[in-house]
Amino acid sequence: MTYCVAAKTDFGLVFVSDSRTNAGPDQLSTHSKMYRFCGDRSRSLVLLSAGNLATTQAVVTRLETDIAKGEEENLHTLETFAEVVEYVGRVSVAEQRKHRDDSDEGGFSPEATFILGGQLAGEEPQLYLIYPQGNSVHTSQLAPYLQIGEVKYGKPIVDRIVRHDTDLETAARCCLVSMDSTMRSNATVGPPIELLVYQANSLDVGEHFFFDDDSDYLRALRKAWDQNIREAFEKLSRLNLTVPRLRSVDGQN
Amino acid sequence: MTYCVAAKTDFGLVFVSDSRTNAGPDQLSTHSKMYRFCGDRSRSLVLLSAGNLATTQAVVTRLETDIAKGEEENLHTLETFAEVVEYVGRVSVAEQRKHRDDSDEGGFSPEATFILGGQLAGEEPQLYLIYPQGNSVHTSQLAPYLQIGEVKYGKPIVDRIVRHDTDLETAARCCLVSMDSTMRSNATVGPPIELLVYQANSLDVGEHFFFDDDSDYLRALRKAWDQNIREAFEKLSRLNLTVPRLRSVDGQN
Repeated sequence: MTYCVAAKTDFGLVFVSDSRTNAGPDQLSTHSKMYRFCGDRSRSLVLLSAGNLATTQAVVTRLETDIAKGEEENLHTLETFAEVVEYVGRVSVAEQRKHRDDSDEGGFSPEATFILGGQLAGEEPQLYLIYPQGNSVHTSQLAPYLQIGEVKYGKPIVDRIVRHDTDLETAARCCLVSMDSTMRSNATVGPPIELLVYQANSLDVGEHFFFDDDSDYLRALRKAWDQNIREAFEKLSRLNLTVPRLRSVDGQN
Repeated sequence: MTYCVAAKTDFGLVFVSDSRTNAGPDQLSTHSKMYRFCGDRSRSLVLLSAGNLATTQAVVTRLETDIAKGEEENLHTLETFAEVVEYVGRVSVAEQRKHRDDSDEGGFSPEATFILGGQLAGEEPQLYLIYPQGNSVHTSQLAPYLQIGEVKYGKPIVDRIVRHDTDLETAARCCLVSMDSTMRSNATVGPPIELLVYQANSLDVGEHFFFDDDSDYLRALRKAWDQNIREAFEKLSRLNLTVPRLRSVDGQN
């Protein structure tokens, strides 16, 4: 399984991904799910992937090959972000189609989902989710983040913290906490964790962090968050239970 | 959709359920998913339900009818908790089977899942999850809680707080917070919220709380939790971003 989360705020973009892949409990492996594509300061693109590893690797290989071969249509030549998203969607559908006939066999599915974010010179930063069908949705002021993979465990904290006007450090920290909650509740999501922070209009590769299992920062974050959550919980008003039995707790029968 | 969570600690049992049902976005309705069955202080049973509403209602009707008709096998006569669990499982499978042939039509599924907890005189309190197939699992010291329905959003906080030696008030408050996180992230889970706290060896009906949409307690809990979570988050050490760009953040590339 996989968990990736990305946010677009007024100040730029934040991407967080885990690196655990599995095909059954004894085929655990580690693969980066974050890919960066830059073209001589005319564009900066980040791709996060979830789903079938063969498909996502084939898609990335194809994207890289199209650049290397100088195909007319590639990540470095397309002129708008919308065209880039459509192109990646088409490549994804084409790669999945090669194996669609096998789809019903033993639960196999070639499906893959992507988050694509970044900026092209002359445009605003953008952030899209590309579905297995190749169509896509983008963030908005009211819905500034996207998730793929095992999305539910880590959703509540992002819902609470990330707004369009959240600064990049806060958004990055929140996405790491969201990843931590997911790892804690789901064993198929795991480190190393990658974080990329892209400042709007910089058109550079962004600032990349790689946190492995032994990362002091990640350990400290996990420990502090656990401690802080417990304290946050302890501070809640207690329920008025049984003493005396029928005292006025609101709504009590 | 539904969210129900229940915990068994050394001090008793806690049950929390929402009351929203839906069959499509314009067929929202409110139904209690918590049912209590008691027999003259020889037993106290609580049933939480998720899944097809027709099935869960049919199961509850059958359980009640078997008691009313004085069937040889009913919730008041069975002698061990394990027998009660098996009986409810059998009733559930029988009710689902009536509609199994329709299962493939338009995504219809008659499946239902239950949490059954309580105590029979002479036994310890017990807590089981009954699958649609009629089989079941129970809690243990290391795994003291169970969830059914939309389980993921509210799992991290229960994972952090509830242990076998957690007091009942704390377990109850934690299950309410877990419900709050779920409602916040999923529109198909909603109030009224029911809470039942059963003290071990009391063999009574337990203490029942009913929190509707306007509940002051639930509103205050939600507001305080949101505030406390934000503070917990704010207290985390900040990431060392960009100033200066290559300063030693652990693991930074």
